[in-house]
Amino acid sequence: MAEPLRIGLAGLGTVGTGVVRLLETNHDLIAARAGRELKIVAVSARDRNRDRGIDLSGFAWEDDMANLAARGDVDVVVELVGGSDGPALELARKTLARGKALVTANKAMIAHHGLELAEAAEERDVALKFEAAVAGGIPVVKGLREGTSANALERIYGILNGTCNYILSTMEDTGADFAEVLADAQRLGYAEADPTFDIEGVDAAHKLAILAAIGFGARIDFEAVRATGITSVGAADIAQADALGYVIRLIAMADVEPGENGTPTLLQRVRPCLVSKEHPLSGVDGPTNAVVAEGNFSGRLLFQGAGAGEGPTASAVVADLIDIARDEVGAPFSIPVAQLKAMPPTESGHRIESTYIRFTVADRPGVLAEITAAMRDAGVSIESLIQKGRAEGGGDVLVAMVTHEGPERSVRAALELLDGSESLTAQPLVLPILRD
Amino acid sequence: MAEPLRIGLAGLGTVGTGVVRLLETNHDLIAARAGRELKIVAVSARDRNRDRGIDLSGFAWEDDMANLAARGDVDVVVELVGGSDGPALELARKTLARGKALVTANKAMIAHHGLELAEAAEERDVALKFEAAVAGGIPVVKGLREGTSANALERIYGILNGTCNYILSTMEDTGADFAEVLADAQRLGYAEADPTFDIEGVDAAHKLAILAAIGFGARIDFEAVRATGITSVGAADIAQADALGYVIRLIAMADVEPGENGTPTLLQRVRPCLVSKEHPLSGVDGPTNAVVAEGNFSGRLLFQGAGAGEGPTASAVVADLIDIARDEVGAPFSIPVAQLKAMPPTESGHRIESTYIRFTVADRPGVLAEITAAMRDAGVSIESLIQKGRAEGGGDVLVAMVTHEGPERSVRAALELLDGSESLTAQPLVLPILRD
Repeated sequence: MAEPLRIGLAGLGTVGTGVVRLLETNHDLIAARAGRELKIVAVSARDRNRDRGIDLSGFAWEDDMANLAARGDVDVVVELVGGSDGPALELARKTLARGKALVTANKAMIAHHGLELAEAAEERDVALKFEAAVAGGIPVVKGLREGTSANALERIYGILNGTCNYILSTMEDTGADFAEVLADAQRLGYAEADPTFDIEGVDAAHKLAILAAIGFGARIDFEAVRATGITSVGAADIAQADALGYVIRLIAMADVEPGENGTPTLLQRVRPCLVSKEHPLSGVDGPTNAVVAEGNFSGRLLFQGAGAGEGPTASAVVADLIDIARDEVGAPFSIPVAQLKAMPPTESGHRIESTYIRFTVADRPGVLAEITAAMRDAGVSIESLIQKGRAEGGGDVLVAMVTHEGPERSVRAALELLDGSESLTAQPLVLPILRD
Repeated sequence: MAEPLRIGLAGLGTVGTGVVRLLETNHDLIAARAGRELKIVAVSARDRNRDRGIDLSGFAWEDDMANLAARGDVDVVVELVGGSDGPALELARKTLARGKALVTANKAMIAHHGLELAEAAEERDVALKFEAAVAGGIPVVKGLREGTSANALERIYGILNGTCNYILSTMEDTGADFAEVLADAQRLGYAEADPTFDIEGVDAAHKLAILAAIGFGARIDFEAVRATGITSVGAADIAQADALGYVIRLIAMADVEPGENGTPTLLQRVRPCLVSKEHPLSGVDGPTNAVVAEGNFSGRLLFQGAGAGEGPTASAVVADLIDIARDEVGAPFSIPVAQLKAMPPTESGHRIESTYIRFTVADRPGVLAEITAAMRDAGVSIESLIQKGRAEGGGDVLVAMVTHEGPERSVRAALELLDGSESLTAQPLVLPILRD
């Protein structure tokens, strides 16, 4: 058997300790599959003395994790520290500059600096791998880099944030409102103490930008992702969606559309959507993630599994290490960085979609006439409409409608006509509908 | 860019013409991803003059496909002829013997001769790839070889035959009986003129044997797969399952269990099963395939997509070619053949499962007492039981029950007690239940 692959591991949080445990538990079968032993030689973390329930005595310790890159006995650095910049980025740069391979679970760093790091890796022909950065244990980076490599992809979309999916599917099961379920999720460890990045869609946006770059051969463009979180989705919306045959999920979606002059443009969006109960994503409950890739020859492929957690994320990190031990390097984004296309963001106004709109209105005569007139004037065709008094009686009333397919900008125009109307007591909620 | 990867293509049926079309349609993006052009240089098929709707004039023609292996201008042979032995096997052997890579969609050949061919490939360090042999366009061979490579797998199971899944889900939707739906499926092209291999579970058994070898590091053992087809499943069973909260699917399942002396044994089975409507496989309809892999760190992963057809299968063939162009070779079964373990088949009698049993009985007093006494005497505990007269009245009656979890052998013992009973007018149908 060949020489061991010698690993320097930075970060001993949940995922880092998971990697240590996994390499120990599955030691022999990993060596058989990799063709050589995977051996941690040095580790680094903030606090040397914290009890993590694992034995670190066999590993050298580095107080400064940047030193891992410089060690002569380290072949590959695993970065599990997190943060788009700062020490993680410094470590990544140093590792690649020394011609060593880098494995990371850091979606923010890849979303912001992936191209720079990939270029550095390509220059020295070393691996930069980040399977664990997207959708936890699901091998979807590999799925797009290699599994669907023969296809021009039409769309990539899915459920990329387990926290939001847990919250939405629990709201669905219990009828409880957002704030209540979020608090429960925090108690249960499905949501962080500061959940902003999750519930505002930023985490899903990081992951989407990475998948879009790989799938469409585009230069990664995180800034262009338009993300809307789930904080405005109410229990009433979920009940209404259910009655209409839908569930609500936070969907990250990317596709390529011809812009003016026919140059391809990249649409990247994270939005809560109404998902038809006939669609495979509607059955994805709890903290599960799922990604759909639609290829021009493969048709629709679905990858589903645990999107986070110690075991699944460690599984993805170690799969990358096994690839490296097998000497499977390849361009990090499937195509060398120099050949990735810079695609401007899609002007989305002309996109045709069917939309759910929920108005919260004062309970008085003429409100429905006002809303439906605005729809008519903006050219929005209504497929179904429900008006419903609030359970607590009096006060506000809910008007929910589903539009026929039409350009997004028409709905926007209708809402502009209603802007400032005294009939509306809250901002309307607009959710696109995913039917197939 | 590097030199083109030069392809010799044997077989110009549906999949072969699909590969020609795919390499042409996605030519540029494939070259970008592969780092070199993928170029067909020579083809071979039975009939040179048949109109396939594709232009073959740019390729050399070989009447004898075995010559493809010998051509100096061919780097890799794609075998899409089919058949476990005969010309396909001869071509595969010759190709590998000459130190050339082989890509095949031939599940029967890999199930029967995969180890011999993999050894030949490993000896010369060339690729043997067969993504298209299992589950069409779903990258599940790669998923198990590489995506879950860090895991000890606990179970691998799924829906591996699109014909059976089309028939069962159509029976479910329409209430029609097996024979009628099969005839429709044949008209629509979802079933072959001779559907035996599909409906008897042989096709799924081929695929399961391949996945089990990769997933469990076992020497492939097709002969040990116990396969039961779907011909005994009636419309009444599907209706009964539905009422109990299940659908019926043909499930291929493999797992490893400790045998006597603790040596690992391999269970490989293809059986129609009752699948809980809560389980992700229950939503897999039509000719779709899906595979679940449960890893000790990854948890449950699901891969789903089109299991057959020109586009999806060609997508898998070309993904293999791109891997080869990228110089990603690796052991065909993830672990070198010499290290694969020979695992004896599991003695399944002690397996604990919950079971659906359907009896067709004469409508006369005492029948229920006879059946339930046999269950009691064999130690089978009944969870629910329904007796239902046949719609056409008179004659036979259906008795369907679901047992509590218990050893498989107890159910077998109960049926042996009832063997020869004049109360039973047909062979009972026993289907295991898949809950989670």
